[in-house]
Amino acid sequence: MNSHISTFEPALADAALLAEESLEALLPPVAGPEARVLEAMRYAALGGGKRLRAFLVIQSGLLFGVDRRSLGRVAAAVECVHAYSLVHDDLPAMDNDDLRRGKPTVHKAFDEATAILAGDALLTHAFALIGSPEAHGDPFVRCELVIRLAHASGHAGMVGGQMMDMAFEGKTPSLAEITRLQRMKTAALICFSCEAGAILGKASQPMRNALLAYGQELGLAFQLADDLLDAEGDAGEMGKAAGKDMGRGKSTIVSVLGVERARQQAKALSEQAVRHLDLFDGKADFLRAAAEFVVARRA
Amino acid sequence: MNSHISTFEPALADAALLAEESLEALLPPVAGPEARVLEAMRYAALGGGKRLRAFLVIQSGLLFGVDRRSLGRVAAAVECVHAYSLVHDDLPAMDNDDLRRGKPTVHKAFDEATAILAGDALLTHAFALIGSPEAHGDPFVRCELVIRLAHASGHAGMVGGQMMDMAFEGKTPSLAEITRLQRMKTAALICFSCEAGAILGKASQPMRNALLAYGQELGLAFQLADDLLDAEGDAGEMGKAAGKDMGRGKSTIVSVLGVERARQQAKALSEQAVRHLDLFDGKADFLRAAAEFVVARRA
Repeated sequence: MNSHISTFEPALADAALLAEESLEALLPPVAGPEARVLEAMRYAALGGGKRLRAFLVIQSGLLFGVDRRSLGRVAAAVECVHAYSLVHDDLPAMDNDDLRRGKPTVHKAFDEATAILAGDALLTHAFALIGSPEAHGDPFVRCELVIRLAHASGHAGMVGGQMMDMAFEGKTPSLAEITRLQRMKTAALICFSCEAGAILGKASQPMRNALLAYGQELGLAFQLADDLLDAEGDAGEMGKAAGKDMGRGKSTIVSVLGVERARQQAKALSEQAVRHLDLFDGKADFLRAAAEFVVARRA
Repeated sequence: MNSHISTFEPALADAALLAEESLEALLPPVAGPEARVLEAMRYAALGGGKRLRAFLVIQSGLLFGVDRRSLGRVAAAVECVHAYSLVHDDLPAMDNDDLRRGKPTVHKAFDEATAILAGDALLTHAFALIGSPEAHGDPFVRCELVIRLAHASGHAGMVGGQMMDMAFEGKTPSLAEITRLQRMKTAALICFSCEAGAILGKASQPMRNALLAYGQELGLAFQLADDLLDAEGDAGEMGKAAGKDMGRGKSTIVSVLGVERARQQAKALSEQAVRHLDLFDGKADFLRAAAEFVVARRA
């Protein structure tokens, strides 16, 4: 299975480059007294990161021959939503984090009001990006993206997941409850990223379902790997404080299952994700490699 | 001109009813640990208010024979965006308001994290509502709504206006700067509400432009009337503390022009708004009355 990883990293770097270029073009700085919110948006969205979600949009879309301009725009939209969710989750009233990827979080680098507004504007901007004709020539496709992205991000997705995360603090939720939380908080946007490629490529329903199922397992594997890194990692590698979840009384699958069983579970999820790709040929090898990558990563 | 007002209030009440019914149906309560965010969304969105924006969507759409189901959905979406903006503007890091329409603000009734998340989810929900086929049968129309709503709400609209508002605190911006702020912060969503009816009705460009121009003047008149109420009103009538803008060092058109000239300016804007409706027949009388209403209101 490790054969894919060597070709994966250049593909991830290529996706990161396309996402950064698109975001740079689609979030131009402005002058005037409102400039600060755009600076904060750029700080949050252009601040690096693995760009896994952009990669998933791009590689899923390439399976169906979607052009790079569309993919760059939709990848940028997904990265805006991801960036917004990090900015708001880091706020003092939420997770109260001072560092993100080794840099001050937006409310630390700017201020709290600017961070709230920058998050709001990044979320809004994502819908402007995917609603506009440059995302795809067919308005039906664009509406489908809007609806699915809204579903993945809203109260039935990311926002609901973050609400559950806070509701469970200091409590001992069951494994099923934590899994549902993670499906909403993390897997929903990862799923959407995979589905977006299928929507843009007007894929058949079985292929779209396969990518959704892949995204679902991948998202859970990714979160589990993240929790393992948090439980074991050191702050230098993570670019944020390690062991924070436990310190904060947050239950994770790792705290319920223990490190060893959690690691096995992550591997099983990654393998299940790969199996959902069986109806695709070698063009899906980058997605197969991504499933290996998310559980092998060290940061 | 006062002839319109008597027929206006029932039309506003009818719009409020349609908006409330739509919101009630489109924001059903959920069970589970994420229920709290939906409760907060409902508290914010179903908490009353004049529903001026819903009225504008509905009355603009009725000029072109748009059906009430579409109008109810789009009106609900606009009211979700309006509610989100109030929830976030009221936060401690922003305007730090404890009361809104005589009730505790969302972060007081729930908590700060829940208020941030409820605002995020209301904004997201608005895009889900207008992106879906129930908003309009033609996906091109729905995309147009998505793009224009995103523009009105994002960094070039409401969010940018709120950023300017905070940037100007304790400063003395010029009349031109305050007007630009208010175009972005308040008039943009009011404009969109008027334009939405034209988009849904596939209106000719001149008619769409007329409604946009009407919305622009109406939005400024509305904000000016609000500032006059703040400068003169008492807390009981407003449902929030009066004189707050001045106490906070916020410049308004009233603080620059003085009450008397500001009142004349509001009247002039209202009359200009009405003149933009000249190419519509008696069906636009409710919109004409709205322009009178916004400057005559006492709360």
